[in-house]
Amino acid sequence: MDGRAIGVFDSGMGGLTTVRELIRRLPGEDIVYFGDTGRVPYGGRGAETIIKYARQDVAFLRTFDLKAIVIACGTVSTTALDVLARENPLPVIGVVEPAARAAVQATKTGRVGLVGTKATIASGAYERTLRQMLPTVQVTARACPLFVPLVENGRYRPGDALVDLLVEEYIAPIKAAGVDTLVLGCTHYPLLAEAIGAYLGPDVTLISSGAACVDTVARLLEEGDMTCGKADGGVHRYFASDSAADFGALASIFLGQDIQGQAQQIAIEEY
Amino acid sequence: MDGRAIGVFDSGMGGLTTVRELIRRLPGEDIVYFGDTGRVPYGGRGAETIIKYARQDVAFLRTFDLKAIVIACGTVSTTALDVLARENPLPVIGVVEPAARAAVQATKTGRVGLVGTKATIASGAYERTLRQMLPTVQVTARACPLFVPLVENGRYRPGDALVDLLVEEYIAPIKAAGVDTLVLGCTHYPLLAEAIGAYLGPDVTLISSGAACVDTVARLLEEGDMTCGKADGGVHRYFASDSAADFGALASIFLGQDIQGQAQQIAIEEY
Repeated sequence: MDGRAIGVFDSGMGGLTTVRELIRRLPGEDIVYFGDTGRVPYGGRGAETIIKYARQDVAFLRTFDLKAIVIACGTVSTTALDVLARENPLPVIGVVEPAARAAVQATKTGRVGLVGTKATIASGAYERTLRQMLPTVQVTARACPLFVPLVENGRYRPGDALVDLLVEEYIAPIKAAGVDTLVLGCTHYPLLAEAIGAYLGPDVTLISSGAACVDTVARLLEEGDMTCGKADGGVHRYFASDSAADFGALASIFLGQDIQGQAQQIAIEEY
Repeated sequence: MDGRAIGVFDSGMGGLTTVRELIRRLPGEDIVYFGDTGRVPYGGRGAETIIKYARQDVAFLRTFDLKAIVIACGTVSTTALDVLARENPLPVIGVVEPAARAAVQATKTGRVGLVGTKATIASGAYERTLRQMLPTVQVTARACPLFVPLVENGRYRPGDALVDLLVEEYIAPIKAAGVDTLVLGCTHYPLLAEAIGAYLGPDVTLISSGAACVDTVARLLEEGDMTCGKADGGVHRYFASDSAADFGALASIFLGQDIQGQAQQIAIEEY
């Protein structure tokens, strides 16, 4: 039994969709979450800035005694995972490899779609990983720069004209390519899954990158004999770099449970 | 003659619409611009975070020898102007008072519309100032949280279905209120003026908050005998907290001139 916590971070609230899945799958684990709400969104920023921010996020998390760090952020996973894994003597798990593996297992035609932030698509990390696993894969990738602001403003429900318009604009070329699997390469996007699924139809499998990486975390802990499994459930702590009250008020959308009053604000630029 | 520069800052690129007007009106002045592109947008963040960021923006600008600071940002002007003016022994000019004065001069019916970020509208600063100048004014205010991400992604042209949809959604209650004047309370919004104007029709006067504050700057310099008026034009320096190359590439949209290769990146969190 390993009582150390799992550290999880994201540019903002999106990573809470991964925490939700983590709590469901590993209810006995302690979790420390940091959302960089004071500097969200990362996806349109330059690679150097993203790496700087990600290093600070990890430095803050490591003020706790951790057994693993989960990068619950597509942008950081595609831009800074190598740097973070090299610099930190504990397992650092990103979303790319787990989501690519799930996509390769799901696709029958070998035609896979990919959506993510500008930085994620520009990195080419998903395409490279998919191609290593399935050399014949045909990837249709599309940057969706306005999806994160949309979701962070609570706009993600199908039937919302703005949501439907942007889903059609971004996903049309992916639909036209006839994919049978779509990787949601940003942890904000599971909230848009219903709208995207309605547009693509039931024959396209949607892969949530955050949920996929929870499989990897669970396997890692089991294989390394590092599970905790507290009988009365793990302790979950939440930190943000902008107002803790705002974080608490919005978190339930992503997390599926109310944590108002439980979040704390920290000054991330000091790490 | 006062050869010191005018310092101008904004959360990102939007303040360049003010610099454009400043260069047109005061071509002989040196200008130092800082755009906090590494932390944009400010408008949805908490007041405490906005004040912290604004203090750092001013601290960086004050590493230059300045005669005045222009807050070319609606969010900072409405949230942090008092703090910044108190803490700095030089004129600090925001956009609220100048834009409110221009609106009061323009309106015939006393029905004035206001659009801005979430923080700007929540502050109530524009309404207070308008009411001090014209106690009978009727203000219809609307937060437009997705306008800044839209403009920062280059989406502002009328005829773009997404732009037209959001303009209609945000501006409809203002149109319904029958205003004859609309304050664009965020320095990103002048780029949307054509789309907003097309929706509201020619009888509504649009007040650009950035342009209005340039009048105040010009008067201040003239009255204080602080103009410079270099015959061969002032020197303009541009700084950003994210990639200088990205800043240079996007700046022309806001500034109306190409400054590629002229911007420099700085680490704003160190100020």
